[in-house]
Parts: sequence; C-alpha cells; structure tokens
Amino acid sequence: MKGNKQSNQINLLGKEEQQLRVDRLLAEMANQGIGSALISSNVNIYYLTGRVFRGYIYISAKSDSLIYFLRRPLHLEGEYISIRKPEDMAAHIAKLGLANDAALEFDSASYSEICRLAKAIGGDKPSANVSGALRKARAVKTAVEQDMLKMSGLKQTHVYTTIPHLYREGMRDIELQIEIERASRLDGCLGQFRVAGNDMELFMGNILTGENGDTPSPYDFAMGGEGMDPSLPVGANGSIIKPDMPVMVDINGNYTGYMTDMTRCFCAGEPSSEAQKLNALSAAICAELAKMMIPGTPASQLYNRAAEMAKEAGYERFFMGHRYHAGFVGHGVGIEINELPVLAPRSKDIIQEGNVIAVEPKFVVPGLGAIGVENTYIVKADGGEKITLAPEDIVSLD
Amino acid sequence: MKGNKQSNQINLLGKEEQQLRVDRLLAEMANQGIGSALISSNVNIYYLTGRVFRGYIYISAKSDSLIYFLRRPLHLEGEYISIRKPEDMAAHIAKLGLANDAALEFDSASYSEICRLAKAIGGDKPSANVSGALRKARAVKTAVEQDMLKMSGLKQTHVYTTIPHLYREGMRDIELQIEIERASRLDGCLGQFRVAGNDMELFMGNILTGENGDTPSPYDFAMGGEGMDPSLPVGANGSIIKPDMPVMVDINGNYTGYMTDMTRCFCAGEPSSEAQKLNALSAAICAELAKMMIPGTPASQLYNRAAEMAKEAGYERFFMGHRYHAGFVGHGVGIEINELPVLAPRSKDIIQEGNVIAVEPKFVVPGLGAIGVENTYIVKADGGEKITLAPEDIVSLD
Repeated sequence: MKGNKQSNQINLLGKEEQQLRVDRLLAEMANQGIGSALISSNVNIYYLTGRVFRGYIYISAKSDSLIYFLRRPLHLEGEYISIRKPEDMAAHIAKLGLANDAALEFDSASYSEICRLAKAIGGDKPSANVSGALRKARAVKTAVEQDMLKMSGLKQTHVYTTIPHLYREGMRDIELQIEIERASRLDGCLGQFRVAGNDMELFMGNILTGENGDTPSPYDFAMGGEGMDPSLPVGANGSIIKPDMPVMVDINGNYTGYMTDMTRCFCAGEPSSEAQKLNALSAAICAELAKMMIPGTPASQLYNRAAEMAKEAGYERFFMGHRYHAGFVGHGVGIEINELPVLAPRSKDIIQEGNVIAVEPKFVVPGLGAIGVENTYIVKADGGEKITLAPEDIVSLD
Repeated sequence: MKGNKQSNQINLLGKEEQQLRVDRLLAEMANQGIGSALISSNVNIYYLTGRVFRGYIYISAKSDSLIYFLRRPLHLEGEYISIRKPEDMAAHIAKLGLANDAALEFDSASYSEICRLAKAIGGDKPSANVSGALRKARAVKTAVEQDMLKMSGLKQTHVYTTIPHLYREGMRDIELQIEIERASRLDGCLGQFRVAGNDMELFMGNILTGENGDTPSPYDFAMGGEGMDPSLPVGANGSIIKPDMPVMVDINGNYTGYMTDMTRCFCAGEPSSEAQKLNALSAAICAELAKMMIPGTPASQLYNRAAEMAKEAGYERFFMGHRYHAGFVGHGVGIEINELPVLAPRSKDIIQEGNVIAVEPKFVVPGLGAIGVENTYIVKADGGEKITLAPEDIVSLD
C-alpha cells in the first residue's frame, strides 16, 4: 500500500481509450435513436473519464469531443465549462448550438433531478432515456477495463487464500467477515460496493453459515441471510461457525473501481460428503457455463444449462435458494455488481466478446446451509477466461 | 457481539411508536396539501416500520392504518398485500377505494421508477412529491429514535477512545482508518453509510492528515481529501502520518440504523500550539452552537455565529476549508447523514425540539492540515444535549 498521487487531468483515460468508450456509447445511442445525451451519474462519469467528478458530460453524435460541465472540484486540468449549478448549462448549450433535449439517465437519477436537468439544459421536459444505451455500452469491456478487472481478480484471489489464517475457533460469522474485510482493505479493496438501482444495499459482502443461508432477504441477491440489524437485513447474523457447517464467503472485489465477484466455501472441520458433492456440482456448472460463453450464445441458454445440471443431480429444489429462489445464475459485473448480461431464463441478452460475467450457481439445503462457487469470467472468442482464481474445493479453516 | 434473532413482524416499531411517526408524516403532508402517498425507499420504509423490506407503503389521511404492499421477503407476520410486481397494486388500490394519484418519493426514486409507480397505482402520471414531507417529518426524532441515536453515540465514543491503541509508528492514514473500521465493526457498526441523494459516495468515513486535508473532493462533505482511487476521490490518500501532523478522524457512527457523527483529532507527537488553538476554537464553536439550539431559533443564526467566531479568531480564511469552502457548519443526522435542519447561511430551517444535529466547525490550514471537532446533539427545550462524548482535545496517539 503506497501513497497516492493522481493526475489532475479531467480525462484520466487518455484520448484513445476514451474514444473507444465514446464510440461504443454513441453506437448504442444510435441503435436507440438517441442523438445526444447528458451524463450525470458518478458511475457513468467514471466510465467516460476514469474519474468521478461532480458535473455533467454532454455527448453527441454530431460533436467530435465530449463537453464537460464541471461543478466540483474545480482544480482539474483540461478543457471544461465551470458551472455553479445545473441551470448554468442552458446558456452554454444554446451558444454552442447543442440540442436542448439531450437524453438523460432516467434509471439512475431521481425524478426530481431529471426534471430539473431537462429544464437546466433549456428543454421543456425529459425527452429520452440514455440509461439503457450506457448499460449496453458498458457490458462489453475494453482491454483496459479487462486489465483492471484482472487486477481486482488477482487481489481478491490473494485475500481469499488468506481466509483460513483469519479464522479462530468459536468465531461468529460476522467476526470472520470483519477480519476478511480488514484483509481486503489492507490489500487495497476500496470498500465501495456499487449496485445499480436504489433497492439493494450491501456493505462489504456476504458471509453465510448454517440456517442463516436459508433466510430470504429483501434484496435481489442470489443468497439472503438475516443480517445483523433490521435496517440492513442481509448477510451474516452473528451465528457461531460450527465445525461441520460450511461458511460461504462472497466479499467485495472492488480493488480498482472495477469489481470482480467470487464466492468460496470454507469449513472449520471436515465438510460432509453432501456439502462436498454440492460444492463440486457448483464448480462443474461454473466450468460448463464458462465453456458455453461463446459470443453469439443467448444468455438464457447458460441459465437453462445450469438449471438442467442442478436437476440432473437431484438438487433442483435447492438451486439458487430453497425458501426463496433467485431468478438468475449469473450477471455482468464491472463498475457495478449488477451489469449486463443477465443469465436468467427470460433474458434476451446475447453473450458478446468482452462481456465480464459472474456465474454463481449456489445451493441452499436445510441442515447444510448455503454452498456454492462463484467465478468471474471474461468472454473471449472461444469461451470464458476465469479471473477469480482461488481454489474451488471447500477449503479447511484450520 | 451476540447472535441475532429478529422478530418477524412487518412492523417492528410497535403500534404506538409507529403511530407517532405516521402522525408526524401526515401532518407534514397536510401542510403541503398531500392527501396520500406511496413510500418506496428503503430508508423511509425503515422509518415507518423499523425494518427494510422490498415493497411499498400506502399512507393516507383518510385511512386508519398503513397498507403494506410486500414484494420480498414474503415470510413476514402481520397484515399485508403480497405482490410480485408494482403493477399488481392497481387492482388492490381500485378495490380498496384508495387514491390512484398518491404522492411519490420524487427525490429518491429514479425517474423511471416514479413513472412506473405512477402507472402501477392506476394514475396517469406522477402527481406530487412526498420527499419533502418525509424529510421534515424525520427531522424531529421521537424518543425511541433519540435512544437509538444515543446508543450509536455511546458505541462510537467507545471506539474513538480506542484509537490511540490502534496507531503504530510509521502508519499511513489509510492503515489507521482500516484499523478503526475493524474496531467499529467489532463493536457493532453496521458499516452502511446512508447518504440522501445520488451524488455523494463515502465508504466508512474520512481520515485526513497533512496536505490531503486541503484537497477538494467532488462531494458535498465538509472536508475532502484525494482518496485512494479516482473512482472514489475522497478521504485518506495513503499519506504517512507524521509525528507533528494532526490526524482528523470522522468515521461511520451507524450502530443502530441511526448514525451519529463525530470528528476528533489525534496526533502522534506534540501538536503545534496553532493546531491546539484551532482545535479549541472548533470545540468552543460546537459548545456555543449547542447553547444556541433553542427551539424556534433560525438555523442560519447558528451558522452565522460559527462564522463570526472563526472570523474573530482570525481564521475566517480557513473556516470549513481553504481551497474550497463548504457552505454549511452542521446538518441533521439520523437514518441518513444529511438530514434536516441544515446549518447554512441561507437555510430557512428553524431549530425544533427533537432535531438531532451534527455540528462540524472544521479548519484547513496549509502546513497544518485539517483540524476540528464534530459533535452530534439532540435539541432539548433548553439547548443541545451532546451524545458524542469522546474527549475533545487533540488526543495523543502514543
């Protein structure tokens, strides 16, 4: 861990890398008949510049370059228009001859903010939604993004290999989680766990053991858990880790601004043969789906294959939950934990080269708890390349 | 830290406490001419029931009780209407004779979600915004909420008293932060740092030392910092903690679902006399503002008094920042870190009994870094009662 000295450029990506992303976004906008857009969310400002600032980015098919409206911080280097409030944009937009009905991020900005922004750029009312185009653009990662994901995968892998050393006999699930959080942070984990949408809240991830694996949460995560408090009802609930009970660890892999997603099971004693069988099944489903990640394949086929393998093994009832079943087996991952494509029965997504996909075929069996492996893969021409590399067996905590 | 076994009731507050909050909200809604509302955000569902679930709460001046539309989890006890998707509400709302133009949370739900919800309850378009009424209702805490805040204050205070033991010579700011995070979590800190609005992201809080205190962030926090990564440009940046340089600690106080906010300065060696003077000035401003927290007082008066004291002492230039000045000296705190009232020059808020207010008169001086004290107070009839009780001097890290 070393001191940090960042460049002050408003665009940290460099011209070429930024252009790749801009081109991807403009292509998706064109597909949807959107000519111009004003980007306002932290995650998408980060996507287009490699940094978070407070302000807006105007992008248009007609213009060569992005136009930055910067609110804070105002000490950056590069060409931008300094504004104090969104309403300051209208005069600039009129003067520059830009469209005053640019599409906005309807899926992430609040209703109040969108209404304000629509007026602030000189329009009457919100015109079009650019959120879908952004999601589609971000679903295919550039080589630079892939490298950042690989780096997160390496660091997360290293932390997972230290987990057995963090365990002490008699520990509660939350206590082990806290030690993993610390180890992750010391290895450079940024902590922030970005989730698209307002519904889902998670702190640093999820550790489940025993019965708690079967407690549904309000959130659309693959596994639930009761949590420590009704204000945040997900994950570890203070259960003591029993020697014969696996512990499923699914902790934040955001080391670079890009998150990998990895789950592994651990056991203080000898895991039961059924637990081992289920864990092996989960790993086998991961491997099978990785092979199926051939560009052009419908994402739904991967879900169906996973469900089929669970059924063939006689574990259909416990696949992706027991009291509550999650409706997917995998998801894109990147700046946020829930990106495209979605591996679900009714997903219309098609696997593309450059997708980065977390596959998490998990099982909850009463008396056994939550068991499963999760890996993140980069889609190459010939299938998924695994970038979360910790051993996949149930690892002994001794 | 013990095992956790929560009640399964959909309303965890009990009838009486819930009624207090409902009455407060209905009164604020009436002030704004709003007859009915549909609540959708996690924080406001938590406010009205004491738990987070996925679903919606319909509240109306005409009805005796709240109507719950529950999506997940569906194993709760109590009376509710189970729905699979928002659109399932319309038929129930028509059948029960409820208004199909209930106000919605325009300030927190996305534009897409609000448009969908408006139709899902059978209306044409979004009718009115209930966010302001909710913010005003929540600004005055009930006795139960005050107790939860006091409990958070006690736990946070305990963690702060352990900080000197967490320091090791040669440590970087981020390393000390990680040890404080761990200590906080072991004492029951839930981690989640809830901020209203989409702009501001912060993980577990902020530690600033040396020059980094003068680095502006994009976020509307009192102090900035460069952060460890451009994807999250705030807070510690890996600076080595120098013996003569104070370290300002402002770490997450969410132990109960309600957050207290406390800042203290620490120093590995002997702090300079100027640092001590500034820290004492900050503590004196806190104490003065606490005395001024008499119900009926305009919040702007408190800001003005703080600015005046900074000016009298000759530190106007460094008050609430140096390269960038934050435009407030305090803020309400509760379920979220940025509640009402706001202590700012143009604030129209009036101090009310039951407000819970964090006061943070901070200074950034080149060569000295960030210095200041922050306390959380409950407004009583005769002034503010401090609930963040760690010693206010610059504490030695030895």
